[in-house]
Formats: sequence, structure tokens, C-alpha cells
Amino acid sequence: MDEQFSKSDLTWILAQSKVPRPLLWDGDSLLILDQKRLPGDIDYIRASSWEACRDAIKNMSVRGAPIIGVCGAFGMALASAKDHENAEKACQEIKSARPTAVDLSKCVDRIYNAGLHDPAMSVLEAVAIEREDHQRCLSLAKNGAELIKHGTKVLTHCNTGSLAAGGFGTALGVVLWAKLIENKDVSVVNTETRPYLQGSRLTSFELGQAGVPSTLIPDSAVSFVMAKGMADLVIVGADRIARNGDTANKIGTLGIAISAKHFGVPFYIAAPKSTFDMSIANGKEIPIEERPKDELIRIAGKLMAPEDVQVYNPAFDITPKSLVTGYITESGIIGAWKIPYLD
Amino acid sequence: MDEQFSKSDLTWILAQSKVPRPLLWDGDSLLILDQKRLPGDIDYIRASSWEACRDAIKNMSVRGAPIIGVCGAFGMALASAKDHENAEKACQEIKSARPTAVDLSKCVDRIYNAGLHDPAMSVLEAVAIEREDHQRCLSLAKNGAELIKHGTKVLTHCNTGSLAAGGFGTALGVVLWAKLIENKDVSVVNTETRPYLQGSRLTSFELGQAGVPSTLIPDSAVSFVMAKGMADLVIVGADRIARNGDTANKIGTLGIAISAKHFGVPFYIAAPKSTFDMSIANGKEIPIEERPKDELIRIAGKLMAPEDVQVYNPAFDITPKSLVTGYITESGIIGAWKIPYLD
Repeated sequence: MDEQFSKSDLTWILAQSKVPRPLLWDGDSLLILDQKRLPGDIDYIRASSWEACRDAIKNMSVRGAPIIGVCGAFGMALASAKDHENAEKACQEIKSARPTAVDLSKCVDRIYNAGLHDPAMSVLEAVAIEREDHQRCLSLAKNGAELIKHGTKVLTHCNTGSLAAGGFGTALGVVLWAKLIENKDVSVVNTETRPYLQGSRLTSFELGQAGVPSTLIPDSAVSFVMAKGMADLVIVGADRIARNGDTANKIGTLGIAISAKHFGVPFYIAAPKSTFDMSIANGKEIPIEERPKDELIRIAGKLMAPEDVQVYNPAFDITPKSLVTGYITESGIIGAWKIPYLD
Repeated sequence: MDEQFSKSDLTWILAQSKVPRPLLWDGDSLLILDQKRLPGDIDYIRASSWEACRDAIKNMSVRGAPIIGVCGAFGMALASAKDHENAEKACQEIKSARPTAVDLSKCVDRIYNAGLHDPAMSVLEAVAIEREDHQRCLSLAKNGAELIKHGTKVLTHCNTGSLAAGGFGTALGVVLWAKLIENKDVSVVNTETRPYLQGSRLTSFELGQAGVPSTLIPDSAVSFVMAKGMADLVIVGADRIARNGDTANKIGTLGIAISAKHFGVPFYIAAPKSTFDMSIANGKEIPIEERPKDELIRIAGKLMAPEDVQVYNPAFDITPKSLVTGYITESGIIGAWKIPYLD
């Protein structure tokens, strides 16, 4: 792909976010920022095997659709170097660690198909995947920033910043570009995002580091915030987009989209084009991961519900294209009416 | 008011819920079930002064619009008995402990106006308020149960059971009546209800005690649950209803109502007629309580966001009448088109 940003530009731009990088390749192992301990502790896990990468993805020490793709690629590079005979198993297990996001599957397959016979080549390919992710996310952020005017109040959900994706991230990347590069007066309302609190723990942290004024709300306050005129624009990320535009994203996205339509607030999805899965016709075919019961009923180790309660804890929901205003990508903003776009 | 249920019927009916009563008058003090410690611990706080009642309301050891009204009435009875010279202050401070629910204000005024000169009379009046609350909530529950068929899946929010109101409660009371008295095959999807988790801690507990199958979901999963056909009917409570039908209820209610409309799911408010505040023309005039920042960012004592983050933590939102199918009251189900009803 075209590289819009030179290596030195990239280094300068990335430094503006003042947020630690979620992944660092260390020659023979991958340092994974333990996002479960943010914002309290900044601590890296050293992953020296593909199993360690798989586990970090599964237990959500690393999360965010693009970044788990990059992590999976480095995991495959570790399989190539250290456990070549189990490469097929590594491929399957890493991919199934989180089934909804399409990037993970695509990145793992790319290493498996391209470089697996050659450990050095595998690492180079994983590094290339990471660099491409930076390039396309920054292009995407720059494209999306045209939606931000001076004074725009953006509502977002979950975490889609530089902890979740290359560059400044996807949806949050748009805001960060507008603020850090274009110096626009933008503010954010962000949900806490139960049960993992990516909003409280990660998005509030990233916005604070970047100096963007932000207001944290419970997930349940989205509609009231819109009713009060506290949001001009919604921008969220995506884990997988079907050919028809239906979008899997963090649980709660569908409700935000329905409220946005009700109140006439534009609703944008920000995602690299790789998030479109052209093999999938519509949202019904996207597998929705269900997370363990304990993630909902135990908080900071404390039981918050009767232990035998039945729980439904889907990690994602599906927002139909009919509720989407447009898709912000590295190639520009694609109006929802143009979808399917890549057929 | 008419007493539909005799004293012995009432005793038998209340025992069916197998849930401890939220308030017990003990002759010269009020025992307040500490709902913040449920479902782990069943523990009563002994309130021997009006200040203790005020504090229990303010810190949410007792919550639920009808029950805080009863608690406020007993608080005024304690002021009458033990601190008569500060009765005016007690009246103001108890009422302002939680400003949104109308019951608290009405009940406190009733003791202040009727029995304050006579401590014994004050207690009798508070007991009468409690008994009336039982009567009207059970009538309401019985009326609402006609909406429940065999197999109906009800979605509800927050806690509106016998911990929140007399009888079996309001919205949850409808479900409990259908199950416990009419033996209907009803099931519930209930939200956890951040930040206080009244859904996880209280509603799941009450439904478990009553043997009603229930599924706990994060607040953000409401729309997806509706999209999947997991809810036939929404029933929620109310803290105050304006003359035009606009309803203040737990934050998140507005979003549920918008989603219900989107998916064609009937949306009912269950509340005694006393919840209508005829002095208020519409929802914009209802005061919305904002709760402290720490309730959102600290969970079980652990900091979950940057400490200096800005927070918007409203306890309630306003659902316009246009999103309501009907109001379930002790006098029957009032279709939204009949509102204003009591003019």
C-alpha cells in the first residue's frame, strides 16, 4: 500500500499521543502492554511463545481489533521461530482466541501463508503488518477529522485509540488527529463500556494524555446525553463489517446507533478497509463472541450478583447499515448509500 | 383508599416473595435493610433519629421511589417524637436527600401537615402510608399481570420489586404476581443497572428467591437482546411522572424506550398514581439528581478511571410519553393516549 507518512513523520506523530505503545517487538519476544492494569499500572508482559500471545488475546491483556491482529501476527512469527511443527495448531488457536474481529484471522493467515517456513521472514511480515496498520489508521484519522469542526462534541464507545490500533487508533484516532495535529477544539463524551470498562480505563486515559476535554458517562446515559444536546456526532470503531455494511462492534453500539437515529445525530463507523469481510453477506453471519459470566458478576474480585444467576454477556452486537451515516476509512469517508462498496 | 386485600391476605401474599422487608418499624426506631450489602449480606441498620433515616436515603442503603417515601415518613415520625423543635429542618433535609422521586416529598409533607404535633399520631400515619403502599402496589401488580401470557419474556431495568416498593413492588411486582399468584410461566431479562448495580444485586436476587427464570445482561446489551427477539415486553418503574406523561426513571430508561419503539416492543411504566405529579407540566421541569463522581469511577473500592476525569452521572433520565405504550397503576392500565389522565 502507499505510505502516506514517512518513517520520521510517523515517529513524530505517534509521539504526540503520549500513550505507551500496546506492543513492542524485542528481537525474540513480544512485549505486550497489560491493558487490564491500565490506567493504574503501566506494565508489559513478555510473550516468548505463540501460546503467550494467544493467552494475552484471549484474556484481553491486549484488545482492539487491529492490535490483536498485529499481536496474532507476532504470535505466528514466534511459532515459526520456536514451534514450527505446531504451526497449524498455533494458527487455529490464535484465530479462535477471539472469533468476532476479522483482522486477527486475516493477519494470522497472512503469516501462515507467506513466511512460516522462514522465522526471519515471519518477523519481517509481522513488522510490515504493524507498519501498514500505522499508515492506514493515520490516513483514516486524517480523513475523519474533516467531520470535526471547532467545538464539535463527539460521543464514542469502548476504546479505539492508540491502545487498540495503529497510529492514533480508529474512531478515537479521528478525534486525536483533529486535536493533536489540526489543533481543533474538540471534546468527547465517552461511555465507561461495561463489563471491561475500556472507556473508563483506556479512553479517558488516552484523552487525558492528549489534553482533549472528556466526560465519562455510564453506558445507560447515552440517550439522555443526546436528548440534552451533549453530542453532535457519534464515531465508533468496528470489529468486522459484512459486505452489506452491517457492523459488529462492542456491545452497546447498536443502542447508540438507534438513539442517534432517534435524535438525528450522525453516526459514523471508523475502520480500515480490511475490517470489511467480503466473504460475509450480512450481519447475521458474523460470529458473536460470548464472554464468561464472571466478567459481568465479579468486579475487582467482588461478587455483585447471586452466584447462580444466569447471564448473557455478548462482547459485540450488530448494527445494521440502515443506522450508519458513513464509514471512515483510509481511502476517505464512504457514505452508507455506497455500500456494498468493494464488490 | 379501598383496601382490596385483607390483613391476612396481605401477610400471606407478602410471604410468597421470600425476600426480607426493606423497612421494619420497631416501636421506637426504624430497621432499614442495608440494600448496598445485598445479596451477600442481609443486615439491618437501626435508625433511631430522623438524621439516620435521611442518611440511609441519601447514601442509598434504602432506595426505590415508594420505599424511600415510607422511610421518609418514619423519619418524620422520629423527628416528631425526638426532635420536635427541628421538624421544619427535618422536613427540608429528608425531602432534599433525593430530589427526583415525588413520593418522598409527598410522604414527608403528609406527616408534617397531619401528625407532627403528636408522636403517636405520626407513627400511625407512617404505618398507614406503608399499608397503603402495600395495597396499591399489589393492586397494580394484579392489574399489570394481564399483560403476561404463558411464556412472556419481560425486560426490566433497575430494581422495582419488594425491596423498592410495597407489596411485590411495581414493575417487578407485575412479574412476581404473574408467577407467584397466577403461576404463569414468565421469564425476565434484567439489566445490571450501573453504577449501583440494583439489577445484579437486587433484581436477580428477588427473581431467584421467587423462582422466576432470569437472565442478567449489561445495560449496553438491551438493544441487541431486543434485536434477537429475547424480549416481548418492557416494564419499568417511575420516580416521577409529569402531568403530560413524561416519566423520570433510572438512567437508561430512555434508551430502552427508544429501542423498544425501534423494535416494536411494547413499553409500559408501572407506578402508583401518586407518582404522577400534577404540579409539573412536562419532563423538563422534573429535577434530575446527579450522583457523586466516585460512584462511577470506583468499584468495590478500586479506582477504574484516571482520578481527575470529568464525569456526568445522572441518576435518572426523562422518557417522553410518546415512547410509552401505557401506565400500569392500581386503578388499571392507562393507555398513553389517555394522558393527561388526572387533570
